[in-house]
Parts: sequence; C-alpha cells; structure tokens
Amino acid sequence: MHLYGHPASGNVYKTQLILALTGRAYDLSPVKWGTPEIESPEFLALNPAGRVPVLDDAGFVLPESNAQLWYLAQGTRFWPEAVKDQAQVLRWLFWEQYSHEPYLAVIRYLRHYGAPGPETERRIAERTPGAEAALRLLEQHLAGRDWLVGDGCTIADLALYAYTHVAHEAGLPLDGHPAVRAWLARVEALPGFVPLAAYETAA
Amino acid sequence: MHLYGHPASGNVYKTQLILALTGRAYDLSPVKWGTPEIESPEFLALNPAGRVPVLDDAGFVLPESNAQLWYLAQGTRFWPEAVKDQAQVLRWLFWEQYSHEPYLAVIRYLRHYGAPGPETERRIAERTPGAEAALRLLEQHLAGRDWLVGDGCTIADLALYAYTHVAHEAGLPLDGHPAVRAWLARVEALPGFVPLAAYETAA
Repeated sequence: MHLYGHPASGNVYKTQLILALTGRAYDLSPVKWGTPEIESPEFLALNPAGRVPVLDDAGFVLPESNAQLWYLAQGTRFWPEAVKDQAQVLRWLFWEQYSHEPYLAVIRYLRHYGAPGPETERRIAERTPGAEAALRLLEQHLAGRDWLVGDGCTIADLALYAYTHVAHEAGLPLDGHPAVRAWLARVEALPGFVPLAAYETAA
Repeated sequence: MHLYGHPASGNVYKTQLILALTGRAYDLSPVKWGTPEIESPEFLALNPAGRVPVLDDAGFVLPESNAQLWYLAQGTRFWPEAVKDQAQVLRWLFWEQYSHEPYLAVIRYLRHYGAPGPETERRIAERTPGAEAALRLLEQHLAGRDWLVGDGCTIADLALYAYTHVAHEAGLPLDGHPAVRAWLARVEALPGFVPLAAYETAA
C-alpha cells in the first residue's frame, strides 16, 4: 500500500487515519499541493486532477480521499452493514466535500500559505460564513448523538474529523460547539488513533 | 418515493434520471434554491443544509444528489459488482462534487440568475478556468473509453452527465470535446432516458 500526499493535509490525513485504525502498513511519498511535482507528468498519470491523496494498492490507483476511505473501510467496523446507514454515511461524505472542506480546509490553507494582503483576506472573508454554517450544522446534528450515523464510528466521522478538529487553525475556535468537541474526543479515543501532522513539522 | 427539488437543477435531475432509467414512479415537490421555502423550518427539518434534492423513500430521508444516486443504484446495472470498480465510481462522484459541479453548475446558475454587472462577471471569470479544466479532464479520460468506469454505464456517468451536457449554458460549448460529446450521446440513448427540464419551462 502506497500513499502520495503531504502529511499536514487533512485530506491525506483521512486516509492515514483509517490505515492506522485498521492496522495496515503503508509507505508515504510526500507530494505537496502547490509544488511543481504535483503537476509533473508522472504524478498526473496517477491522478489527472493533480490532487492528493492518491492511494496505490498493489497497482490499483485510487484518487479522492473519501473514495479511499470507502475502499479501505470495506469489511471493517467503519462501514455500516445496513444499506440505509451506508447511504447516510455517503451523504455526509458528499456534504463534507461540498459544504465543509471548501470552507474550513481552504481557509486553513490560506492562513498558512496565502500571500499576506487584502486578496487573501478577501478570500478568507468570502469563505468564513460557509465554514461557520458547516460547524453549526455539525453541532446541531451531534447534539444528543455520539456519531454522525448509527451507533458507531464510521468513515463519515473520520472524514469530518479531519478539518473540524483544526477549525481553530482556520480562525474558528470550537468554544461554542460542545457536542462537536465531545465527538472529536470520541474519535481521538479510538484504538490506533494517530494525530494529524502539524504544518511546521511536516513541511 | 418523493423528491424535493427544482426540475431545472442538474443535481435534482441526477435523481430524476436514475428514477426514470430504473422505472420507478415518484412525486416531485418543486422546492427551489434561492427562495424562502428552502430556508423554512419544514424544509430544514428534512435537510439542515438547506439544499435540494432531498429524497424521501417511505420516510427514509436522504439529502445529497450523489448519495441518492448510490442508494437508488443498489441492485441495478448502474452500480458495478467489483469492489475496485465501485471505488472508482465513487472517485468520480467525489470529483464531480469538488472539481466539476462548483464550476460548471455555479457558472450556469450565475448566467441564469446572477444580477447583471461586474460582481457576477467576476464570479464567472473566477470559476471559468476550473470549468475548462474539468472538461479537459473528462475529454482526456473518455478518449478511447465508452464509459467513465468499466464496460457499462454507472452512476458516475449519470452524475457527470447532469452538468456536462449543459456546459454551453455555462458559456462553454463542447465543440473541442468529441469524446465527451460521443459519451453524452451514449447516455441519451439509454432506454428510459429523460431530458433535463429547461430553465424557462421549469420556472
């Protein structure tokens, strides 16, 4: 099993997290967003979208973090058995990519790597209401629930953990979100849990 | 089976298309993006994200068009049998929501409903390179292939058909994309195919 991606990326971390939680070994090639390497012919042959993570499972090449979560969860406790629960897990995975990641992950990225100045500030301001709405929706859904779907941790929780637990790095501390914070702690208590690499140590 | 959504929305159309292709009857409540109705307590109880489509299958409520495609494809020819093909189908569904829909669908929406003026033009211009890149990637992938994954039509094709076949409504005609045009014609030749409602007739 081989993974391409920068270990401080929340999307790459999703895949690292399920690999750790399910006890599977892998190698990591640290390909980084925003570098020439990610636009090289070699990398684009793996993923023409020019994005990480890319998973290579003995020659089976799979882009898209949430598709990787699904693939790696098959036959594990992180993919529920009932079709309706499976559909709800996928609902949260699509919501994560459309209504959560484009706000929380992009703001976090801009705060770390954006050129200081009004254009970066405009882009952060433009995306902040969407980030706040995503966190409000999570808080509302998790109030009175342990996990996003059903009675156990699924890949919906793992996908949404990735950029929610570093919301403060996007300028959005979770003080007003007690249900979200309790849920983050439940993910962190899973046997085999590994933390996201910090930007500075992963550079 | 009950569907909430505006019939000129490509996301709503995805679900209408698989319902038609698999011969299932349903009722439609025409809830429209950008209206007070979609932010009403009644609708937010169905989908706290305030988005259409929402599917209600005898009380099982499922938001997110691509999760609905997955749910409705179970046990049909549109969900492949091999796990690796299933993973690739999901890869394209996530790519559609992250790297295709936010460009092609949003530009199409802005051209129909955006307030005429420099702010709408700025937003269209900002998203046009992403739309062009998505269409280039599809053309490259479909050159020499009939379908996105494997040997038959899957929900990956249905999801990507929705906003690709109206690329011209986003100002991006497909003249330079022969493989994409041939693939669109293959989708349109499926038994039971139904077209997307036009904006003007669906208003």
